[in-house]
Amino acid sequence: MSTTQDQMISIDRLSGDLRELAEIGRAEDGGLYRMAFTEADMRGKDWLEQRMREAGLETRRDGAANVIGRMEGRDPEAPVLVIGSHIDTVPCAGMLDGTLGVLTGLECLRALHEAGGKPSIPIELIAFSDEEGRFGGMFGSQAFAGQITPDTIHQASDLDGNKLSEVLEGHGLDPWEALHARRDPETLAGYLELHIEQGPVLSKSRQQVGVVEAITGLFKWTVTLSGEPNHAGTTPMRMRRDAFMGVADFAHELPRILDENGSKRSRATIGRVELVPGSANTVPGEARFSIDVRDTDETVMHELAISIGKALTAIARRRKLRFDYETESWIHPVDCNPRLVGMVAEAAAECGVRHRRMESGAAHDAQIVARVCPVAMLFVPSKDGRSHSPAEWTALDDIEAGARVMLGAIRRFAFGEGEATVGNAGNPG
Amino acid sequence: MSTTQDQMISIDRLSGDLRELAEIGRAEDGGLYRMAFTEADMRGKDWLEQRMREAGLETRRDGAANVIGRMEGRDPEAPVLVIGSHIDTVPCAGMLDGTLGVLTGLECLRALHEAGGKPSIPIELIAFSDEEGRFGGMFGSQAFAGQITPDTIHQASDLDGNKLSEVLEGHGLDPWEALHARRDPETLAGYLELHIEQGPVLSKSRQQVGVVEAITGLFKWTVTLSGEPNHAGTTPMRMRRDAFMGVADFAHELPRILDENGSKRSRATIGRVELVPGSANTVPGEARFSIDVRDTDETVMHELAISIGKALTAIARRRKLRFDYETESWIHPVDCNPRLVGMVAEAAAECGVRHRRMESGAAHDAQIVARVCPVAMLFVPSKDGRSHSPAEWTALDDIEAGARVMLGAIRRFAFGEGEATVGNAGNPG
Repeated sequence: MSTTQDQMISIDRLSGDLRELAEIGRAEDGGLYRMAFTEADMRGKDWLEQRMREAGLETRRDGAANVIGRMEGRDPEAPVLVIGSHIDTVPCAGMLDGTLGVLTGLECLRALHEAGGKPSIPIELIAFSDEEGRFGGMFGSQAFAGQITPDTIHQASDLDGNKLSEVLEGHGLDPWEALHARRDPETLAGYLELHIEQGPVLSKSRQQVGVVEAITGLFKWTVTLSGEPNHAGTTPMRMRRDAFMGVADFAHELPRILDENGSKRSRATIGRVELVPGSANTVPGEARFSIDVRDTDETVMHELAISIGKALTAIARRRKLRFDYETESWIHPVDCNPRLVGMVAEAAAECGVRHRRMESGAAHDAQIVARVCPVAMLFVPSKDGRSHSPAEWTALDDIEAGARVMLGAIRRFAFGEGEATVGNAGNPG
Repeated sequence: MSTTQDQMISIDRLSGDLRELAEIGRAEDGGLYRMAFTEADMRGKDWLEQRMREAGLETRRDGAANVIGRMEGRDPEAPVLVIGSHIDTVPCAGMLDGTLGVLTGLECLRALHEAGGKPSIPIELIAFSDEEGRFGGMFGSQAFAGQITPDTIHQASDLDGNKLSEVLEGHGLDPWEALHARRDPETLAGYLELHIEQGPVLSKSRQQVGVVEAITGLFKWTVTLSGEPNHAGTTPMRMRRDAFMGVADFAHELPRILDENGSKRSRATIGRVELVPGSANTVPGEARFSIDVRDTDETVMHELAISIGKALTAIARRRKLRFDYETESWIHPVDCNPRLVGMVAEAAAECGVRHRRMESGAAHDAQIVARVCPVAMLFVPSKDGRSHSPAEWTALDDIEAGARVMLGAIRRFAFGEGEATVGNAGNPG
């Protein structure tokens, strides 16, 4: 089988597609600006739909403007295998985030179509709308998973105040149709997504493919430590209630907290710090900072939250500060479906591709889709871990390796090769 | 002598002056807005000059618009004792910073004038222009000490872009006259300044007067630590080059650095921290922060600078960061004149006022004047250490105690009471 696959995937054709789509929404700074539901994004959707048709797929758009290309199965009524990702971008993006997953899926289905075989179950390639969050993020996959409410449609607006509903109407779309994009879980067999890693793990460990076992959950707190703003010259060190020193204490406790209560997959980041009044000659009276904590195990997340709260309480007591926090978000981790993960790993082994099991530290459409069907993901390396930047890149060899593994997994799942098809295992979360 | 002094200082009259001047430039938020060379500041100068004349002083303004009131001495040619401070304010100021020193001096000279005695040497009360820094700070005392150059006058402008020279011309003043405000050091015998402490030391130690022995020097660095901005979810902890963790490391080294290389008067403050990109889900790629270090001993300042540089170099190496810094300022510490300090301390003891020797952690006109004649300062307590705020206050009892000590020091210095007059001891720095 691997010889056949080698012949079927054309890296030249795939990289041609990548280059062509990268012309849509490119600005003079070299970055892509294909933010959800902009003119560029809509032209991207049109381009993709045309390419899908050329690949022999039946195309349509659902109520959330997700672009769907379908390859019919021998049993048209059977639950569907979905291959998904997104083609919308952040501002000043690179050409691979999301797009690579969609175009790799396209190349796989095109190759299968050319080979002439028919899968036992239908396969759909879906480019989900607004993964990147112009209007909040994961709009398309949320609609697909039935997570959108009328309130979402009514309230969502971008940073410039444009309302989602008005923007959709401007494209001749009925925003309320998004409520009908929901797919019955019974009609879904599984979901596969290829994505760039957006991290350094694969490139540092010289692997070509990451077999994703879980997608991390996360919580974000905004913490405020309040002390007393004092003159930096007239206030002796021992009479200070320096809010920043509280932040520094906490930063130093973080490695201990992760060692004691975290797993090897735990991450904790202080990414934003604001000091008040924030002048060089004033002891900071207040410090506000963000703490972003991730793990693939929700029990671990809870333990980390408790430990962090204890540490901050003790620091505040010791430094005579007041400690407050607000939970900005709490996102549940998702386990990938073990049988799907196994199929991806087997395909990688068969293709002779250097691979490792790993977690995803970033959120993806797969995380939303996991609420309605079994999912698995595969990663390809990100050069220097870069993403959300024109510097984003993956070596063509690695892209080819990822596409071959994806094709192997699809053949296993939808053609019954290598292993029996997994059924809908329900919500694995 | 102390009985006489008790009768001479009128705290009611002094507090009446304070209240009256506090009406000039007061805004609806309760704060004073008497920034240098605003209409309010000029009205304040007029009010002060009128009060000086009523107190029997000969008044004039020098080329820097410093308001000067002179009490003639038995020897009009003798070097002068100067009593100084300022009446300009920061925006939204309290009523005591600077003003208390000027009005206490006024009350002392008024009391001496009423008592009818004539000092052996002339005494001048000076309200220096722009101590607070609308146009850079210490403009009046720098002109007095001959530290102003044509370039200063040409370049200085406020935060709104108003040029100092044009603002002075708007008040009918010739800005170039500031170059002629310089006083020959041979004509100056000494300088005394009373000021609110702007710190918590006196109130926490329940003292009424601080006898200032030295004014701290300081250096300010802007430090940049550069690492790599990475995704907070996809980047394992051990693969990070987190610039903020470098700042936290450094904050934790500061107490050790002060213990090992500083004195009990050393202060070090991180007052400003900016993280780049500064988003919750990105490992900070760059951290820029201020470090403000003060001591009364320049050798100690140099040792602290070396130790801080070593610590940051080591942290940068350990965390794989790049370390750069810029020296924003280096201000030399100033020793007060021991004989003048002794006179202030003797006056305090004689008045039965609870007092302690201490340093000034903030900069004052005295620091500039010290370049041309011996200086001493006395502090009165700041309620809760507050300053540069409408909450600034000192109990009237403590103000009265400060005024009595100031009067005692003036009598010692200019009337030859208690101790022999000190001559010009030259620049003590």
